[in-house]
Amino acid sequence: MSSCWGDKVKISIFGESHGKGIGVVVDNLPSGEKIDMDKVLQFMDRRSPGKDKTSTPRREKDFPNVLSGLLNNTTTGTPLCAVIENTNTRSQDYGETLRYPRPSHGDYSGHIRYGGYNDIRGGGHFSGRLTAPLVFAGSICRQILERKGIRIASHIYSIGNINDVPFNPLKVENELAEQLNRQFFPLIDTEREVNMRDYIESKRLSGDSTGGIIECVATGVPAGVGSPMFGGVENILSSIIFGVPAVKGIEFGTGFDITKMTGSQANDQYAYDEHGNIVTLTNHNGGITGGITNGMPILFRVAIKPTPSISVPQKTVDLLNRENTELVIKGRHDPCIVPRATVVIESALAIALMNIL
Amino acid sequence: MSSCWGDKVKISIFGESHGKGIGVVVDNLPSGEKIDMDKVLQFMDRRSPGKDKTSTPRREKDFPNVLSGLLNNTTTGTPLCAVIENTNTRSQDYGETLRYPRPSHGDYSGHIRYGGYNDIRGGGHFSGRLTAPLVFAGSICRQILERKGIRIASHIYSIGNINDVPFNPLKVENELAEQLNRQFFPLIDTEREVNMRDYIESKRLSGDSTGGIIECVATGVPAGVGSPMFGGVENILSSIIFGVPAVKGIEFGTGFDITKMTGSQANDQYAYDEHGNIVTLTNHNGGITGGITNGMPILFRVAIKPTPSISVPQKTVDLLNRENTELVIKGRHDPCIVPRATVVIESALAIALMNIL
Amino acid sequence: MSSCWGDKVKISIFGESHGKGIGVVVDNLPSGEKIDMDKVLQFMDRRSPGKDKTSTPRREKDFPNVLSGLLNNTTTGTPLCAVIENTNTRSQDYGETLRYPRPSHGDYSGHIRYGGYNDIRGGGHFSGRLTAPLVFAGSICRQILERKGIRIASHIYSIGNINDVPFNPLKVENELAEQLNRQFFPLIDTEREVNMRDYIESKRLSGDSTGGIIECVATGVPAGVGSPMFGGVENILSSIIFGVPAVKGIEFGTGFDITKMTGSQANDQYAYDEHGNIVTLTNHNGGITGGITNGMPILFRVAIKPTPSISVPQKTVDLLNRENTELVIKGRHDPCIVPRATVVIESALAIALMNIL
Amino acid sequence: MSSCWGDKVKISIFGESHGKGIGVVVDNLPSGEKIDMDKVLQFMDRRSPGKDKTSTPRREKDFPNVLSGLLNNTTTGTPLCAVIENTNTRSQDYGETLRYPRPSHGDYSGHIRYGGYNDIRGGGHFSGRLTAPLVFAGSICRQILERKGIRIASHIYSIGNINDVPFNPLKVENELAEQLNRQFFPLIDTEREVNMRDYIESKRLSGDSTGGIIECVATGVPAGVGSPMFGGVENILSSIIFGVPAVKGIEFGTGFDITKMTGSQANDQYAYDEHGNIVTLTNHNGGITGGITNGMPILFRVAIKPTPSISVPQKTVDLLNRENTELVIKGRHDPCIVPRATVVIESALAIALMNIL
Repeated sequence: MSSCWGDKVKISIFGESHGKGIGVVVDNLPSGEKIDMDKVLQFMDRRSPGKDKTSTPRREKDFPNVLSGLLNNTTTGTPLCAVIENTNTRSQDYGETLRYPRPSHGDYSGHIRYGGYNDIRGGGHFSGRLTAPLVFAGSICRQILERKGIRIASHIYSIGNINDVPFNPLKVENELAEQLNRQFFPLIDTEREVNMRDYIESKRLSGDSTGGIIECVATGVPAGVGSPMFGGVENILSSIIFGVPAVKGIEFGTGFDITKMTGSQANDQYAYDEHGNIVTLTNHNGGITGGITNGMPILFRVAIKPTPSISVPQKTVDLLNRENTELVIKGRHDPCIVPRATVVIESALAIALMNIL
Repeated sequence: MSSCWGDKVKISIFGESHGKGIGVVVDNLPSGEKIDMDKVLQFMDRRSPGKDKTSTPRREKDFPNVLSGLLNNTTTGTPLCAVIENTNTRSQDYGETLRYPRPSHGDYSGHIRYGGYNDIRGGGHFSGRLTAPLVFAGSICRQILERKGIRIASHIYSIGNINDVPFNPLKVENELAEQLNRQFFPLIDTEREVNMRDYIESKRLSGDSTGGIIECVATGVPAGVGSPMFGGVENILSSIIFGVPAVKGIEFGTGFDITKMTGSQANDQYAYDEHGNIVTLTNHNGGITGGITNGMPILFRVAIKPTPSISVPQKTVDLLNRENTELVIKGRHDPCIVPRATVVIESALAIALMNIL
Repeated sequence: MSSCWGDKVKISIFGESHGKGIGVVVDNLPSGEKIDMDKVLQFMDRRSPGKDKTSTPRREKDFPNVLSGLLNNTTTGTPLCAVIENTNTRSQDYGETLRYPRPSHGDYSGHIRYGGYNDIRGGGHFSGRLTAPLVFAGSICRQILERKGIRIASHIYSIGNINDVPFNPLKVENELAEQLNRQFFPLIDTEREVNMRDYIESKRLSGDSTGGIIECVATGVPAGVGSPMFGGVENILSSIIFGVPAVKGIEFGTGFDITKMTGSQANDQYAYDEHGNIVTLTNHNGGITGGITNGMPILFRVAIKPTPSISVPQKTVDLLNRENTELVIKGRHDPCIVPRATVVIESALAIALMNIL
Repeated sequence: MSSCWGDKVKISIFGESHGKGIGVVVDNLPSGEKIDMDKVLQFMDRRSPGKDKTSTPRREKDFPNVLSGLLNNTTTGTPLCAVIENTNTRSQDYGETLRYPRPSHGDYSGHIRYGGYNDIRGGGHFSGRLTAPLVFAGSICRQILERKGIRIASHIYSIGNINDVPFNPLKVENELAEQLNRQFFPLIDTEREVNMRDYIESKRLSGDSTGGIIECVATGVPAGVGSPMFGGVENILSSIIFGVPAVKGIEFGTGFDITKMTGSQANDQYAYDEHGNIVTLTNHNGGITGGITNGMPILFRVAIKPTPSISVPQKTVDLLNRENTELVIKGRHDPCIVPRATVVIESALAIALMNIL
């Protein structure tokens, strides 16, 4: 448990925000898979901070240094390790002992968990920076999945109360998927970007933040994948997805709204399509029944809470003097991590699918 | 994977709806724990079908026969196995080969997964009946947890569009928990039962069904439990909860609605309370930050889809003749499993907490 | 851990010697595998106590009652559970609290491990009787393996100082394997049985016991199976084999004797055989190099210690009065479990191979 | 599986002999443990090649660069990663495609396993060099164990036919353990070193190699550690020990020789010692009965095969032309890895004990 995940393909993520480096070991990848490292870097770019959609050149410090597992850009089958150096580690910003836990961060819970010994600088191992190796691993996996006809995409379903149009649950065209894969601010209806950005900017200006919902899809997953009970696709996906910081909920298909439907509305009825394939006429189950795929798109949504790092004053405790106090968090913070989190969710899905298939 | 779950305490569930029996092996329970089997049976009763809240005598067939792991009603520490016989198995109702998959059941996906060899009678291993051993195992675990001061309760948060009042996320009194633990139709505001039952009955009369949302809480879990990334409490809970048939979503704390809040609204600020304990002033994170408990109640909601077994005609495929057809499911079916599912969710939570603590 | 084992195919063994029953859940077997239950019972017979080689009719009490996972004698793919009732449980023979731990049994170590709560009657969960479900599970697995051309056999390599002829490490004919599979006292040179039995009988008459070595082989395992480091075939085999009571050592190929050879003697040199297959000219590595099979027979030996239940007086402690004392173990005991253990080792190998392949 | 091992404390080893680097992630170490890195380096030195017992200065290239998990030389509790750079990677020595598999190496089996895509340069992931991160991880673990009073030591039990005196199975003094911990050629009777070195040198001069046996002990492990069946200490130890290249057998206590004893000779009888502790009068079981420790020293021996890299001509196959051929392995090779392997076995034991305790 903890920072390892997986069964067939295992990832083991390490690092702290202000330590020497972060990275990932990916064990048991299939051998002989050609990896296009440029594509991996493109996906990692979508997660990188300080980016806007007009292309910014990659900053060297986030470059994954592959130590093992790749030879001539081809997987050897033995463990693949990549390390990302932490160059910009201004450790003077942080004392090394926690005094004022930041609300809704892992500061306080981690302090208790690790008896005060964990590295708190920049969030330490709880930092969102740890999703960089997750995206690296996921971007390797999705290249392997694509060769099997499996496509992954996601978009910003909502920021605060502003919604994008949802995916068509019955069919997501490869063109749309590819287009979303390239966007730093992935939207199906790109005209809504202005509104969303305005809303985020207004939060930033008031020292506040916002959250949102990410909708993610995998197409091309054959029917019959997964297992009943605890081996279900929903179980496996959620067990990795909640590893992404700030995720507070996950729902498949119609999700919580299915509870307001009747069975006759909610049931996904079967039919042979024009090619003789069995399809469902609706996809309220998000491609999964009984824990097992039915061949329809796997569709789920993930709730991302507002960035807890805000600059407005907040109540907290002074652990040293054991008294109530107020905290103002300094520094520039991301007022909304939802756009950057899209590729993280996609990557977690890719790793999960590599394990299930 | 599949029907095994857990790390420290492992459960392995077996059985098919119309086979000889179903049951569970619980491995690695602590030794020396006194188990009150009557209490276990009370919880199992809440899951039993054909029950209304006026006490119905236990039907012998669902009685768990403990084969091992208990001596003088005390855990030995070695694997505990309980078997529930299937007595009422009218296998003549079902052919043994799947022809018309029922929409939104595991019939079709399981048929592909197992190459047509799985036992489809009564849903086989996908049947909701398999939650009986889960409740058995969970009811053992919650007695052990109670001795550590941990209480688990849940209520019907909603049926269709009819809501109960939610839990107070900051504090759930033991009296309320105990009262809910005894209800077959657990509600905080019991006056809403009539409305909800009327709605369910209206669906039953039209051959249809409804779903709902269950809200579940654990109090008394100390701060510092769980691990970052994939070892988080949310990861672990969701990986078992989605093993309960019909669950399509899970959200912690304020869940999906937190995405509509700003950081300053959503952040759970800290304070010392009058006893010198650190508490949060709100609990939008459901007692978990960074994957780790913060000492507040663990709170989550689970979406239960409408029972897929309905008697109105539905479109499906004829797998034998490979053509589209219509299906009418016969027999009496539960128009809403939400009330019975409450104790199943509580049990899954209990098993998960035994693993995390 | 504990009484669960496996990764792809998982077994979970439960039960205590004098409880209601013992059994096993086998999860994730491939579906659609026809199982000949008579053959399973034949293997279970080889493990049964009170047997000599002249056929004794099966005693009903050891009959495995399959509760799930088989339909029309074919695996459904969902968990297969079998229960063996304990009928002959004279619990009056044993107090329920340990006072005089029997030397070299698990009595004392188990007493500490479980804080005195484990069921000590008949050895409880430590009893050799728990190998019956292991043989059941293994006998299912070996039928599936045989369809892939994999044969398993073992023989009594030695009893005390009396040796059988060893397997030819380069080739074990199917005829020999089948013949050994049917023997209650499996020997390659069956003329040595008299000597061995005489020796065992002499130990029995003096209230003593003897151990021995089992040599086991699997043929037909293709090259390339297993993984480097901790995923090696030797790692996986030993992790299950030491679960068989009384095993104190395991060695592969030439084993400990290879340490006395030079590299030029020990190295298994390669050649193309007359069919164009790559073979080795010797098999000092027991078919495994770098943790991975090379296509030669997998060959290993297992050391079985003398049965610790002997009737000669032994020194032990009185845990009640905390003083030294002497113990005489009453009742009839098996002076040598090696013959019965052969099929247990074979079964463990079969389960392991199902996981690796 | 594969290159990950462990349950509570997990190690994930990566790297190839001639890749950029090798290393290990150690997940779930207890937090707040002070680590003396000099002591870690001393143990790593014992494994380093090209060393004789007169102290040689550490060569920088084998220096473990700790990227995470340590702050002020104290474990943070989050994953600890160390990387060892590969500087001396003369990849021109090796083609990148396997043509002539070296007998008794993982070349051929790995070639099949990975479809020819694994990195074969220097043995790739199969190289003995991969034990460096194992020693690093183990050396961290044994410092934590020492604080709990657990001491680990090993010695060269034999080289070829030349034996050291064995450990006293009932008691290994801390002074002896410490002395062995510092030796590059650890022997209880150090006068035997000359003979052993002469024998090794004679093999080297003839282009040949030799193996040997390592005897390893852990003292101070309390009674009651481990679990029955597959959770036994022997199972867990062997599952990691066989991950050390060249290990072909493991035996606990008296091991294979116990099979030649009678029960009355082999049974470890109990007594209270002068301090009122329960001890055994002999230790033929190596401190483990029923899979669980009994408080006596844990004692086992490991068979190390002769180094397969020898310079005498050997028969092998030409995979390109598919014909038989002869191979002469060039370069300097270690004629006996037993001395260097002692600390590797100790390290594997330390990691295993961290998991069991």
